[in-house]
Amino acid sequence: MSQQNIYLDYAAATPISKAAQLAMQPYLTDQFYNPSATYLAGREVKRALETARSAVAHWLGAKTSDIIFTAGGTEANNMAIHGVMAANPSGNIVICSIEHDSVLLPAQQYDVRIASVDKSGRINLEDLESKIDENTVLVSVMYANNEIGTIQPITQISKVIEKQRRNRNNRLPLYLHTDACQATNFLDIHTSRLGVDMMTLNGGKIYGPKQSGALYVKAGTILSPIIQGGGQERGLRSGTENVPACVGFATAIDEAQQMRQSESERLQKLQKSFVDKLIQDIPGAVINGSQKYRLPNNVHVTFPGQDNERLLIQLDELGIMAAAGSACSASQDEPSHVLEAIGVSDSDAQASIRITMGRSTDHNSIDKTLQSLKNLVVY
Amino acid sequence: MSQQNIYLDYAAATPISKAAQLAMQPYLTDQFYNPSATYLAGREVKRALETARSAVAHWLGAKTSDIIFTAGGTEANNMAIHGVMAANPSGNIVICSIEHDSVLLPAQQYDVRIASVDKSGRINLEDLESKIDENTVLVSVMYANNEIGTIQPITQISKVIEKQRRNRNNRLPLYLHTDACQATNFLDIHTSRLGVDMMTLNGGKIYGPKQSGALYVKAGTILSPIIQGGGQERGLRSGTENVPACVGFATAIDEAQQMRQSESERLQKLQKSFVDKLIQDIPGAVINGSQKYRLPNNVHVTFPGQDNERLLIQLDELGIMAAAGSACSASQDEPSHVLEAIGVSDSDAQASIRITMGRSTDHNSIDKTLQSLKNLVVY
Repeated sequence: MSQQNIYLDYAAATPISKAAQLAMQPYLTDQFYNPSATYLAGREVKRALETARSAVAHWLGAKTSDIIFTAGGTEANNMAIHGVMAANPSGNIVICSIEHDSVLLPAQQYDVRIASVDKSGRINLEDLESKIDENTVLVSVMYANNEIGTIQPITQISKVIEKQRRNRNNRLPLYLHTDACQATNFLDIHTSRLGVDMMTLNGGKIYGPKQSGALYVKAGTILSPIIQGGGQERGLRSGTENVPACVGFATAIDEAQQMRQSESERLQKLQKSFVDKLIQDIPGAVINGSQKYRLPNNVHVTFPGQDNERLLIQLDELGIMAAAGSACSASQDEPSHVLEAIGVSDSDAQASIRITMGRSTDHNSIDKTLQSLKNLVVY
Repeated sequence: MSQQNIYLDYAAATPISKAAQLAMQPYLTDQFYNPSATYLAGREVKRALETARSAVAHWLGAKTSDIIFTAGGTEANNMAIHGVMAANPSGNIVICSIEHDSVLLPAQQYDVRIASVDKSGRINLEDLESKIDENTVLVSVMYANNEIGTIQPITQISKVIEKQRRNRNNRLPLYLHTDACQATNFLDIHTSRLGVDMMTLNGGKIYGPKQSGALYVKAGTILSPIIQGGGQERGLRSGTENVPACVGFATAIDEAQQMRQSESERLQKLQKSFVDKLIQDIPGAVINGSQKYRLPNNVHVTFPGQDNERLLIQLDELGIMAAAGSACSASQDEPSHVLEAIGVSDSDAQASIRITMGRSTDHNSIDKTLQSLKNLVVY
């Protein structure tokens, strides 16, 4: 990233950390052996893989065997949804209305019920509870939203589910899955404190390599695999393991969780100052998503009447990289289902930009961005 | 790989080539942007991705849009099988008896018919033809076997299928898929010369990065995606693209195909000399698989009465890395379905080792291996 540029799209992609990069290097080159091989060199690579697995498990308060390495968050979400639903064909699934497409689209292949959110993007717990019935086998709620940064009350949701489990008269399972791709940099991901049975992690959003990640699968949770073959990853994700990616991901999660409190505090201050000045200096600017339950790195703002495509191009010309909605759907030119769910009109959606901060973001970059926006947003 | 070691397990994993490694480097570090982003830096990464796609397409004689990047060969095989079968639920699938587990296991979820092979591992074309009926929508035959190296007559198989298509009275499709993971280093992979509709490629077996690869999907071939989300890879493989892996894979396939003829000739000579001496010097040694239609890097040999585990451990102690069967199933301790299909008894299977050569293999390494085997195989 060149010095003069200001990168504010950390929710779309993070640069790889030096430590993750260094950790990967030997497994990209000399230590290339297949971890299933029986010779010593292969067994050493296998050991590195299992050490990485155990480092990931540590932060989740999980058993090492609960960690299934995947090629990224999208695959892990698909594995959780299809894995449970294929194993329970008579069951239904309840998700939240602002889930990522990698949960929403797989869920739509089954009997899916959608719990609503309030105007800040927080899940309506009563509505969620009313959607769960005797045949619900899976509830999936994103820990923190990728577009508007709203954090969901996962612990409270897990209590709702615990109650439903106790009242149940049949033998169907009822699992709670959360997509923690955006949460991992800033929030507690300890699975038993949260009360989740499955959790999606994504290396590419936490300064690790792209298409690295994992699905946490609590012991006793029964999934059908979506990718079969050599039986790697406990039969849930076959394919020769991507050891450099697993090692890089483990290093990245370690760093991210170690610095999560200091980075949260640092970015929260930047966020507050940025938001305050946006509202004060740019007439009509509206912040979307919860002010209280929010990732510290996310600022999602509507400038009513403005065209976000123009704004983003002009920001880019000034060396400032930001986004409209999620990167995934950026090229699809569809209105965001997340903004729709929180009651943002189509025209306001098209006047909104997402600014997501990260480790390189400082006061200077925020000040320059604010100044640029003030110049560009013309009424 | 240390100098004194002799690596003879190239079918399980290849070291990454210098060129592939260098090509990946910028996208592992500075050029980390999400290729779906709209700012210039993102569009530049997208361009690198599309350049990689076009380099892969070149060797397949394919359109750029026919290349779907995947996280490795196993995923690509699963995508081909589930993709076609889910889109055609009334259809059946015909595979060969010595397919890799990543074809075999997905196929077993559907109405599957299995075409037999002869004692050399070559498919029985008459049996294959008899297994195809009006409702067959997919035929999947591995181009070159990962255990015994036998090469299948893909062009002839495509002619059988072409004939069946012409005789068909319904509107079901009939596609030909081939798993070319082991073939790419040594054989022609031009898809229209071969007559295939889908082809699996694997970067991790051609001196590219692990869990890189692609599924070639001929225009007009209709697949259901197995992984959904942001809609990347024409909606067939969602997830933020692993640009370094795609670029590394494209570089690797380019190198592999450029050197395939010279490497084939070089290794064929080594193979012949090795096989001749094995048979001559070690009483009872039997080569499995076709002598004529065979990958030039594969030597699969039975030493009747010997224990392959002991042999492999002793070879490893001498710095020689070889395998018993495929790496995937090495840890599963099951008899190989491939050896069973060609009529090798269980006890002979347990007396067999697979030696697969590659770019670092020379006369010295083969001579040392032969000498070691002569010392270790004791009657």
